[in-house]
Amino acid sequence: MGLLEFNIKSEDGKARTGLLKLKRGVVNTPELMPVATKATVKALSSDDLNELGAQILISNTYHLMLQPNADVIFELGGLNKFMNWDKPLVTDSGGFQAFSLGFGKEHAVGKIFFPDESHSLSKPRGKSIVHLNDKGIRFRSIYDNSRQFLSPEKSIRIQEKLDADMILVLDECTSPLSSKKYTAESLERTNKWAKKCLEVHKTNQAIIGIVQGGHWEDLREKSARYIASLDFDSYAIGGSLGKSKKDMHNVLDWVIPHLPENKTRHLLGIGVVEDIFESVERGVDLFDCVSPTRMARSGFAHVRPPNGTKKNKYRIKLSSIKYRTDKKPLDPNCKCKICNNYSRAYIHHLLKTEELLGFNLISFHNVYFMIQLMKEIRDAIDTGVYQKIKKEWLI
Amino acid sequence: MGLLEFNIKSEDGKARTGLLKLKRGVVNTPELMPVATKATVKALSSDDLNELGAQILISNTYHLMLQPNADVIFELGGLNKFMNWDKPLVTDSGGFQAFSLGFGKEHAVGKIFFPDESHSLSKPRGKSIVHLNDKGIRFRSIYDNSRQFLSPEKSIRIQEKLDADMILVLDECTSPLSSKKYTAESLERTNKWAKKCLEVHKTNQAIIGIVQGGHWEDLREKSARYIASLDFDSYAIGGSLGKSKKDMHNVLDWVIPHLPENKTRHLLGIGVVEDIFESVERGVDLFDCVSPTRMARSGFAHVRPPNGTKKNKYRIKLSSIKYRTDKKPLDPNCKCKICNNYSRAYIHHLLKTEELLGFNLISFHNVYFMIQLMKEIRDAIDTGVYQKIKKEWLI
Repeated sequence: MGLLEFNIKSEDGKARTGLLKLKRGVVNTPELMPVATKATVKALSSDDLNELGAQILISNTYHLMLQPNADVIFELGGLNKFMNWDKPLVTDSGGFQAFSLGFGKEHAVGKIFFPDESHSLSKPRGKSIVHLNDKGIRFRSIYDNSRQFLSPEKSIRIQEKLDADMILVLDECTSPLSSKKYTAESLERTNKWAKKCLEVHKTNQAIIGIVQGGHWEDLREKSARYIASLDFDSYAIGGSLGKSKKDMHNVLDWVIPHLPENKTRHLLGIGVVEDIFESVERGVDLFDCVSPTRMARSGFAHVRPPNGTKKNKYRIKLSSIKYRTDKKPLDPNCKCKICNNYSRAYIHHLLKTEELLGFNLISFHNVYFMIQLMKEIRDAIDTGVYQKIKKEWLI
Repeated sequence: MGLLEFNIKSEDGKARTGLLKLKRGVVNTPELMPVATKATVKALSSDDLNELGAQILISNTYHLMLQPNADVIFELGGLNKFMNWDKPLVTDSGGFQAFSLGFGKEHAVGKIFFPDESHSLSKPRGKSIVHLNDKGIRFRSIYDNSRQFLSPEKSIRIQEKLDADMILVLDECTSPLSSKKYTAESLERTNKWAKKCLEVHKTNQAIIGIVQGGHWEDLREKSARYIASLDFDSYAIGGSLGKSKKDMHNVLDWVIPHLPENKTRHLLGIGVVEDIFESVERGVDLFDCVSPTRMARSGFAHVRPPNGTKKNKYRIKLSSIKYRTDKKPLDPNCKCKICNNYSRAYIHHLLKTEELLGFNLISFHNVYFMIQLMKEIRDAIDTGVYQKIKKEWLI
């Protein structure tokens, strides 16, 4: 049992705000965690993140166990100190990479598979570098191709060395294209691993159980009941979320009623605007998503309504020639320091000349956009107008 | 005649401190300008530069006339506004690129040619993309290979549109490997261009004349006398500085006595530690150099004495495996925020994983190092201990 307290503040339907107390501070929920995959939120400094008001970050066990490795980070005083971040931090277990470097490559899919998107199983993203059995996950390092092994015990030991505030159990994240039979077998293994992780966990870090089961109601329910029966500090919903947004909503509707009210619910790896609204409405408290910084590196800047809509995915493509002489800020309705100080034309120029500053400025703005959105969501829940702002955003 | 005033504050031998008043503010000299080649000091934001206490930057006409181009920047309110820098700014004339993309490529040399370094004229860095005659410089764009032409008039018109505080005349920067005959012919042309630039210059920007003449005493003296006879607001020493540090010192000794006492002297494109000390001692007030940020992108961090010495070029190579677990800051004797907050091990990790943050952190530290050095030099001159600190640094 880790150091964790979660108090619900307000409720608006199933949506809720709360205060999550972790060993390094308090997190107002619902919140989206910027992703510091390799011990840095890409293109942003910890000063930037503090200035942005980021409350909590999530880092990646798979990457950090390979480079620089957990012992190095332990010797240097833990991951928070390593990356100069003194606020709450989560580490994932490495389980998601067993998917993204395995099925994710072979099936060329993400956590949701949209059949209407151009897609072909005959064009995998690459060969799986993962082998999985009941003992754990064997994989190759993406850094030096060395053989690596991650078991439930080992994932916990590594995460203890990294010393984040919250850690995740090792799980298998199945693919939206996995069969029901495979998903059911995988779920048995994931459940065993969850129990094992809880048993071997010894520190004062909070530990999070993960619900799996793909997009099948009975499997999701079975998983939620089992994981909720174990004494985790918090719960996460992971894995394949089906073949449509509807499937994802179903998964939440099936799972959340079985999770305890007084523990946070983290929807792993999800975080674009409409998904956040639909999930918060169903009772999700925590999100993490690489999208704001990944989009920035592709030259996309977030824009709020009315310029941002579901249809344009709340973003503009800055590298487009139409912004070459545009004096306006990235988003005329944004109050961040980037929008106060720089024009689209300047940032277009930085992208054109491949100047590193461009990625920093757009990343800052995009993370501000998400943090601001989460604040507005919390305010709306606290004042009972969640449906109103949801409608304003999802135009 | 531009808006410029220069008042000498203290003298220590020929070294001097002064206050340079430009339309956007006052610059304490001697000072080194960080280089914002393409309207950004690489990997640093204008917030970073303000926090670092940078007093003045220099940008590059050649690059900006091609991308985004001078009219775009003019429409957007000038270069300072474009890059969100409200303090003093210089633009060069584009002349240096006529060298770096011409002789610089063919001769594979910089401003000083050290014959002891491994070098072969049979291995040019590339083919010259520059053709030069009395009217101006024809060259190809490095962006789209389009034909471009830069004349003295055109360089001034472009720099007026960019609207920096100080602008430079168009000159030809010869190579350390150019013959005396060629250098003498080139000097005639450069002198004509200087006069032309002064004649066509109409704004309230300060305008800087450039002394050329390679590493020949008579040519340098001739150039200095002529340029000093024209009514420039400030003077710069450009071009080839010979085949050794001694040659560079000679050039300064030949030129500076012919320049007016009450105008600033800018040694163009120079700025490593020992060159700064030797040049300040000879009466130079201004420097610009890409080295701090370029080194950062190659993973080199500046270190002060006693760790930094002439021999190790005041730097350590952070990507070296020996820093993998090093808890120390980049420079244990540095007080910058990077050294206060991050270990060598962390920054080594960022380089290893090619995270953009690494370049930002080292660039910040390296520019801090240079700005701090210049402050110490000014303090030493003001208190009459210049020789003492020079000795302490040049160990």
